[in-house]
Amino acid sequence: MERGYIHLYTGNGKGKTTAAFGLALRALCAGRDVAVGQFVKSMSYNETRAEALFDGRGTPVPSFGRLHVEQFGRGCFLDRRPDPADVACARDGLARCAVWLSEGKYDVVVLDELNIALHFGLLDIGEVLDVLASRTPHVEVVITGRYAPQELYAVADLVTEMHEVKHYYSQGVLSRDGIDH
Amino acid sequence: MERGYIHLYTGNGKGKTTAAFGLALRALCAGRDVAVGQFVKSMSYNETRAEALFDGRGTPVPSFGRLHVEQFGRGCFLDRRPDPADVACARDGLARCAVWLSEGKYDVVVLDELNIALHFGLLDIGEVLDVLASRTPHVEVVITGRYAPQELYAVADLVTEMHEVKHYYSQGVLSRDGIDH
Repeated sequence: MERGYIHLYTGNGKGKTTAAFGLALRALCAGRDVAVGQFVKSMSYNETRAEALFDGRGTPVPSFGRLHVEQFGRGCFLDRRPDPADVACARDGLARCAVWLSEGKYDVVVLDELNIALHFGLLDIGEVLDVLASRTPHVEVVITGRYAPQELYAVADLVTEMHEVKHYYSQGVLSRDGIDH
Repeated sequence: MERGYIHLYTGNGKGKTTAAFGLALRALCAGRDVAVGQFVKSMSYNETRAEALFDGRGTPVPSFGRLHVEQFGRGCFLDRRPDPADVACARDGLARCAVWLSEGKYDVVVLDELNIALHFGLLDIGEVLDVLASRTPHVEVVITGRYAPQELYAVADLVTEMHEVKHYYSQGVLSRDGIDH
């Protein structure tokens, strides 16, 4: 069976989670099953509604994979500091992801905002590296979020840094339904 | 009606077209209609198969948008130089996109690999700027491809440069079904 690789999408630009969902879509269209674990995040996002469409019923031709999404967060840290409940959520999430990765039921596993969970000290990089190392070899892994630690740069097979050159936030544009979330 | 913005995803890293399809997925899940015009490309890709799923039938709850994909290419220029037929294809494609953008039937229009078409001289930047300027104001535009010209940086509201830090191509890994195409 083909080896799966580790993708790392980091940097301060828009497009990291977006690219992870784009890759999920590509894989689903190829009949592969995808699990997305979202660290830190707790809100409902439009992209996670795709779960209802990639539910295993698909359309007669072609046959699509299944999408499973779970959130392991209690909201972001723009205006508050992480507390023990955030740590517990992230650790439970990592345990869930460890099962997905080791059992190999999903062909692609997205660890969305894992870098943020690491950056804020919710998770230990050593435990994350153990989880990645113990995956079934064919599983493709996509890790997103700003502030990726050097240890993930080292183990990743593909690293893209999304650099923000310009953003409409600076024009005072708020996050928009169906475009930004 | 809300103003639509111009996104530019450029740079040499993996994730540009992928992010465009991720944004398309997000928009489709929010019930918005999306058109994707692919310049230069002529092959079938897994992600374009999503068209069969977002065909307007959707599932009862929630209701998804429609996806329309067209290709305006005759293949890439890794081992050949563009010829007049490539120019004609790209120009016909731009005319198609001009209709989508001006009539406003689609809420999001992706101009995939437009930058490559410009880089290889298949299209004139002045004509592209005219097409962008004449769009119905609410339409969101996503432009992808390496080598974006400065004129597009100038008119874009959001620019993300995808920088390749590491790629598994360097390990001799070829493009894989459902992951890279």
